[in-house]
Amino acid sequence: MTSVLTNDTNLLDTYVSVRDRTEAICEPLAIEDYGVQPMPDASPPKWHLAHTTWFFETFILKVFDTHYRPFHPKFEYLFNSYYEHVGSRHPRPERGHLFRPTVSQVLAYRQHVDQAIRKIVGNETEPQIADRITLGNHHEQQHQELLFTDLKFNLGKNPLFPAYRELNKKPLSSTSTAEVDPLRFVNFDGGKIPIGTSDTDTFCFDNETPQHHVWLEPFSFANRLITNGEYLEFLEDGGYENPTLWLSDGWQERQTRGWQAPEYWLQDEDEGWCEYSLSGLSPLDPNTPVTHLSLYEADAFARWSQKRLPTEFEWETVARLEISQIENDYQGFNLADQGIYHPQPCDSKREINQLLGDCWEWTSSAYSPYPRYRPLKGALGEYNGKFMANQFVLRGGSCVTPADHVRVTYRNFFYPKDRWQFSGIRLAKDLG
Amino acid sequence: MTSVLTNDTNLLDTYVSVRDRTEAICEPLAIEDYGVQPMPDASPPKWHLAHTTWFFETFILKVFDTHYRPFHPKFEYLFNSYYEHVGSRHPRPERGHLFRPTVSQVLAYRQHVDQAIRKIVGNETEPQIADRITLGNHHEQQHQELLFTDLKFNLGKNPLFPAYRELNKKPLSSTSTAEVDPLRFVNFDGGKIPIGTSDTDTFCFDNETPQHHVWLEPFSFANRLITNGEYLEFLEDGGYENPTLWLSDGWQERQTRGWQAPEYWLQDEDEGWCEYSLSGLSPLDPNTPVTHLSLYEADAFARWSQKRLPTEFEWETVARLEISQIENDYQGFNLADQGIYHPQPCDSKREINQLLGDCWEWTSSAYSPYPRYRPLKGALGEYNGKFMANQFVLRGGSCVTPADHVRVTYRNFFYPKDRWQFSGIRLAKDLG
Amino acid sequence: MTSVLTNDTNLLDTYVSVRDRTEAICEPLAIEDYGVQPMPDASPPKWHLAHTTWFFETFILKVFDTHYRPFHPKFEYLFNSYYEHVGSRHPRPERGHLFRPTVSQVLAYRQHVDQAIRKIVGNETEPQIADRITLGNHHEQQHQELLFTDLKFNLGKNPLFPAYRELNKKPLSSTSTAEVDPLRFVNFDGGKIPIGTSDTDTFCFDNETPQHHVWLEPFSFANRLITNGEYLEFLEDGGYENPTLWLSDGWQERQTRGWQAPEYWLQDEDEGWCEYSLSGLSPLDPNTPVTHLSLYEADAFARWSQKRLPTEFEWETVARLEISQIENDYQGFNLADQGIYHPQPCDSKREINQLLGDCWEWTSSAYSPYPRYRPLKGALGEYNGKFMANQFVLRGGSCVTPADHVRVTYRNFFYPKDRWQFSGIRLAKDLG
Amino acid sequence: MTSVLTNDTNLLDTYVSVRDRTEAICEPLAIEDYGVQPMPDASPPKWHLAHTTWFFETFILKVFDTHYRPFHPKFEYLFNSYYEHVGSRHPRPERGHLFRPTVSQVLAYRQHVDQAIRKIVGNETEPQIADRITLGNHHEQQHQELLFTDLKFNLGKNPLFPAYRELNKKPLSSTSTAEVDPLRFVNFDGGKIPIGTSDTDTFCFDNETPQHHVWLEPFSFANRLITNGEYLEFLEDGGYENPTLWLSDGWQERQTRGWQAPEYWLQDEDEGWCEYSLSGLSPLDPNTPVTHLSLYEADAFARWSQKRLPTEFEWETVARLEISQIENDYQGFNLADQGIYHPQPCDSKREINQLLGDCWEWTSSAYSPYPRYRPLKGALGEYNGKFMANQFVLRGGSCVTPADHVRVTYRNFFYPKDRWQFSGIRLAKDLG
Repeated sequence: MTSVLTNDTNLLDTYVSVRDRTEAICEPLAIEDYGVQPMPDASPPKWHLAHTTWFFETFILKVFDTHYRPFHPKFEYLFNSYYEHVGSRHPRPERGHLFRPTVSQVLAYRQHVDQAIRKIVGNETEPQIADRITLGNHHEQQHQELLFTDLKFNLGKNPLFPAYRELNKKPLSSTSTAEVDPLRFVNFDGGKIPIGTSDTDTFCFDNETPQHHVWLEPFSFANRLITNGEYLEFLEDGGYENPTLWLSDGWQERQTRGWQAPEYWLQDEDEGWCEYSLSGLSPLDPNTPVTHLSLYEADAFARWSQKRLPTEFEWETVARLEISQIENDYQGFNLADQGIYHPQPCDSKREINQLLGDCWEWTSSAYSPYPRYRPLKGALGEYNGKFMANQFVLRGGSCVTPADHVRVTYRNFFYPKDRWQFSGIRLAKDLG
Repeated sequence: MTSVLTNDTNLLDTYVSVRDRTEAICEPLAIEDYGVQPMPDASPPKWHLAHTTWFFETFILKVFDTHYRPFHPKFEYLFNSYYEHVGSRHPRPERGHLFRPTVSQVLAYRQHVDQAIRKIVGNETEPQIADRITLGNHHEQQHQELLFTDLKFNLGKNPLFPAYRELNKKPLSSTSTAEVDPLRFVNFDGGKIPIGTSDTDTFCFDNETPQHHVWLEPFSFANRLITNGEYLEFLEDGGYENPTLWLSDGWQERQTRGWQAPEYWLQDEDEGWCEYSLSGLSPLDPNTPVTHLSLYEADAFARWSQKRLPTEFEWETVARLEISQIENDYQGFNLADQGIYHPQPCDSKREINQLLGDCWEWTSSAYSPYPRYRPLKGALGEYNGKFMANQFVLRGGSCVTPADHVRVTYRNFFYPKDRWQFSGIRLAKDLG
Repeated sequence: MTSVLTNDTNLLDTYVSVRDRTEAICEPLAIEDYGVQPMPDASPPKWHLAHTTWFFETFILKVFDTHYRPFHPKFEYLFNSYYEHVGSRHPRPERGHLFRPTVSQVLAYRQHVDQAIRKIVGNETEPQIADRITLGNHHEQQHQELLFTDLKFNLGKNPLFPAYRELNKKPLSSTSTAEVDPLRFVNFDGGKIPIGTSDTDTFCFDNETPQHHVWLEPFSFANRLITNGEYLEFLEDGGYENPTLWLSDGWQERQTRGWQAPEYWLQDEDEGWCEYSLSGLSPLDPNTPVTHLSLYEADAFARWSQKRLPTEFEWETVARLEISQIENDYQGFNLADQGIYHPQPCDSKREINQLLGDCWEWTSSAYSPYPRYRPLKGALGEYNGKFMANQFVLRGGSCVTPADHVRVTYRNFFYPKDRWQFSGIRLAKDLG
Repeated sequence: MTSVLTNDTNLLDTYVSVRDRTEAICEPLAIEDYGVQPMPDASPPKWHLAHTTWFFETFILKVFDTHYRPFHPKFEYLFNSYYEHVGSRHPRPERGHLFRPTVSQVLAYRQHVDQAIRKIVGNETEPQIADRITLGNHHEQQHQELLFTDLKFNLGKNPLFPAYRELNKKPLSSTSTAEVDPLRFVNFDGGKIPIGTSDTDTFCFDNETPQHHVWLEPFSFANRLITNGEYLEFLEDGGYENPTLWLSDGWQERQTRGWQAPEYWLQDEDEGWCEYSLSGLSPLDPNTPVTHLSLYEADAFARWSQKRLPTEFEWETVARLEISQIENDYQGFNLADQGIYHPQPCDSKREINQLLGDCWEWTSSAYSPYPRYRPLKGALGEYNGKFMANQFVLRGGSCVTPADHVRVTYRNFFYPKDRWQFSGIRLAKDLG
């Protein structure tokens, strides 16, 4: 995170708007929905509400506000996610057991912290505090995305398949297969390419820095994401039964977990293949981008296609060129602000489409530190740095990523087995 | 279960009173408390509310009431506990993931079934239906007990240690150690002894039948349950560190699970040993019966004491003699109707005390069928019969057992590793 | 174990003959066969050779022979099976990792201990020593049986299906189905029955004492063991697919382990059902007793047959009457001394057949202490007593039990899931 | 693998010498040592002897030699390691259960295949066959290394700590701490650097190709490996107790596995820290390079030192410069041909030392395909390509790597948790 000169008024406005947005996301939920955790990765909504608050309390109020009185002595333990510097914590897989504190106690905790934050943000907020509030805002935006993906897992694994709410979604029939932009490959030069950010005026995470160079060979990059229909061909061609298409660890996961299809695909006796989305169960739309795949499935699909996944450097190279071409805001993309919360068919005819939003795009790059990477000092150095092993980089945000949270240099990372994020497939290939 | 001539009015009255009681037990709960399942054995309150309803729906309404329309097509699957005859079911360890249906939907399900039951219980209820309603009532009373023990586990494992509610409990100081009846052993003759019930006028479970005989050697039976203070001596004498006191399987459990004390004992830096009860965390009362032990711990304590646990036949022999001596009701005992929900010190000076209520008493008897045992026909034969391996019999009920549910011939059964029931220690020894 | 006045010459003769027999059992093995342990229960032959020696060293030489020098300082740790009084030990599942010591070192260890034992057995062996040598002999005979069952598991799970050696076995065709005695049930009176031994002149284990009485209802007992052909009917009738036939824990084991047939049955594309025996793989003989079943399968078969398994008391009652009728030696039975090492068809027409030898017979009795049972003092008290939970009693010995090791009062015990012993099915039913 | 013009005589000579060497490595073993597998990764010597033979049989004889008759029909199944194209295989964790075939049968298998190979290598061996024999030779050399590391695990985990044999090792005292070259850092320029091989005259694996460029920042590289003494400082400073020094996944492994020190360090009551080597247990030598570490430990040590691990590109850059400076053979390095089989103190004063041999050096580079990487066609494409996820690259060979097997471009790869290879620590740091 680079230090940012922050206008105090904007700082508080942003803080308030981020905090409000988190609660707005939870607004359609019943009290019963706030506590459940059907797998260790998918934390309960109540936990997200509390942990994002804990972040401000722990890293700002307890550090900089000598008058601050903690809301509850055990919350430091209960809502610490993974900060070893802060101390021990409630085991992650047991977050779903925390029926107490109640939802209203957690909302009171939020108010308690919000009031304290308001008091310390004034005309002349110390830069150190301002920076941490900005970090806390971005942290909370990450959890807004997780709220959606974790909720989707909770709802989608419930035998009643409840919808999150009636969503503002384009009807399935609105895009015909004929209207979907055919799959094309666009060539890019290689050479000595800048990667990462050197912009000190805009917030970024420490793992996007420092800017440095990589040497790229020329490559070719797909114009859009892979669709359900294209993925179905792979599946029907025996893709899930043929180990020679898979990475060795991937095939083992597929066997252990019994994968037969993407996470939310279900085969219905009458309807055939269906897909659960946040608006409920519907017949599979062949034109929608395939999503909720592990890296292993994305990689096997690419091998079956005789293509490959792009590296994160190729992705960033393309994005740097393409995004700046269009506009400097991200409003044309299917990000969370659209309120659709599901990937949408590509009916645009731009050269390269769907770079931001819709689905996170698995890259073939292991999540590693950039040359001369320096994590933040102290506990906040644990934010990103200690996860730089065994994970892969995803790029581009998804239909549940806040629009002002994603960037061309943004690096998301998950284990190659993870499927509960909105993760999809962008193909690339070698040139020459 | 023997067929019982049931007065229809009483049948419906009993039904209504049992059903009301279940909901009354849940009355102090927050909505958040209804859904949690911190271990596979401890089902959520909401699940108990629904499953007991499912029992009436499945075994009475769907069988005998041709006009009955099920409340929801998936509830047969969701709330089946273990009946293979009925079909597949939601996995037991995932009951805590069922945040939907909501509490209010489950309460509506209860009303839907209650109304249908009212309609078929009239002036001339068929004996077959009446018998099954009586069975359903007793089934629901078993779940009332489980509601308490599962709730205790949920609340007692929450880092905030919330109380179920302020309980009507004698203050800890009211019984001094001097007032506790000293441990004595009372001799009983052996010989050819009747076991089980032949009474066809009173309800019993099939596993209490048929009445038959066993041959007993003379034995001696402790006048009361073992107290926390006595158990603490075993612990402080290294009982949890000495494998030669333990059954081989028991020592392995103790190692695997890291047992150092009974389930709800905690060592506090300032207070020393504390015990969680349904009214919260308090300093350990040395005069209260020790409870929430596995059979393995009870057996190791007995070996350390150079005594043994009684067989279920010895227990029944004593109970048959002692219970009928006092009164024919169970009002003198600490059962759920007292509203204390915790074992109480023995300040009585009767020959044999605490036979009913306080704690279930582990016996050394494996849970096996009685000679010529016949399970009920069909699905209801799964109620008891299929569990007759690897479990041990406990006798006498506990402080959370409904008073009109327990009997001298009642056989409860749990795995020897189970600790979340109110299980305690009664000692016995050989004579002569 | 009751104290036995032992003629010293016989004592040493017996010792030598038991020790020689153990090595003779291993004689057909390649060096490679001595070390393998494909599952925790099936110890390697080398381990059996060493542990039986350890038993004499630990409980006799180290206790009574002040001149004795241990063979190796680490063998006390390596070859302790489960004696907590003796101290820590090499983990059971890792016995197969002990490629060192070598076979010849273990044989040297045997000689070292044998020489020391010879020195202390003289004209006037102390009764205490004589008793322990007798116990050690019986202990080693138990391990002779385990050598066969563990070897069978090792060989039978090897993809090459090697034979132990060409066995002295009746050819499969020698008994036609017509010659097999049809299944009949023989009635027995109940009443007050003596169980266990009071004979102080013959060796027995502590768990067979003291003699006491049980009260039995009249019952009916099958004339012979269940055959492969009869068991195949159960299998082909869907016995392995129907949970309502199974104990609850049994069905869970069947699911977890994927049982589809007894342990050594294999379905060959060309040959149909085959069975592995110690002489290799052959087509299934329908007339041979079915063997290598868990209690759960035996119990499910009995339920499917609308019969039940006998209790261990019923078995002992029958055996007491039948065995004494024939002769006082056990030569008519298919025990290890026959050198067949596989159950044989019942072509006899006695009232009750196959009581000893062929297969251990699962009873419905949980393994519990007899009334007033006292384990041996000290470490040897761990021999039997600490296993009295979660196991079931089997009676009658098998085709790999030494003839002078089995008795009418002998109680063997295994977990209900265990299948690697020669365990089979005897049916019983209620009378009247 | 690039095609290599192979002189036929040399080809056969090399084949014979590689095959002989494998058997020579096993020469000191007792028959009992050939079969054991104490953990899934450490295959038994017998398995290595057979699998390397299987490789020649499967990929050469069965493909190119129409007269060839397989040695045994089940060996295709038994000794397939991981080739999905070839078919199903014996489960890896159960290789230690294969006591049959015997050692002498496996040696006969080797002779059978050797004779057949001799017949097809003549004056004009087809290039395709010659290439595959060369690949088979290098494959067998990899297994020669694994023979040592797996044997070390087997021997080192046996409670008797047997030596592999008396080794030709410098005595511990021969190098004093004063003689060890002090730790220094040498600067290297960055820039556009070639990586991988373009040499078509020398054998290499497919994962070393194609040659391409990377852009490196200037960096600094340690003159030698980290010693036991330096690692002990980390340990004594609480390195194993401080989670903030560790990668998140690494800390979890450390907790799960209870790591307190490198794999073969033991704390002896009298001697203090000891280390098991292939010549047995000795007091820890502070001057010897620390070895048998996971990447996680190497990375935590580097963080504690305020340095970092090098990337594989930095390593290759240094090696390209340094190795060519010295000589074009590798005789100055402690590789397997020295017969020491343990890392040795650095007493040289060259600028950069121990680049080859002694220990494999963990790099911070995830094992990924080089740009435009093409795996071999068909089954042999599984040799390297399918493992390109979740593993890290190690460089430089070890004291048990054959000298003619290692190269500057050679990429070894293991999971970051793996400790049973001779893996050690080379530090690097950023410049400027």
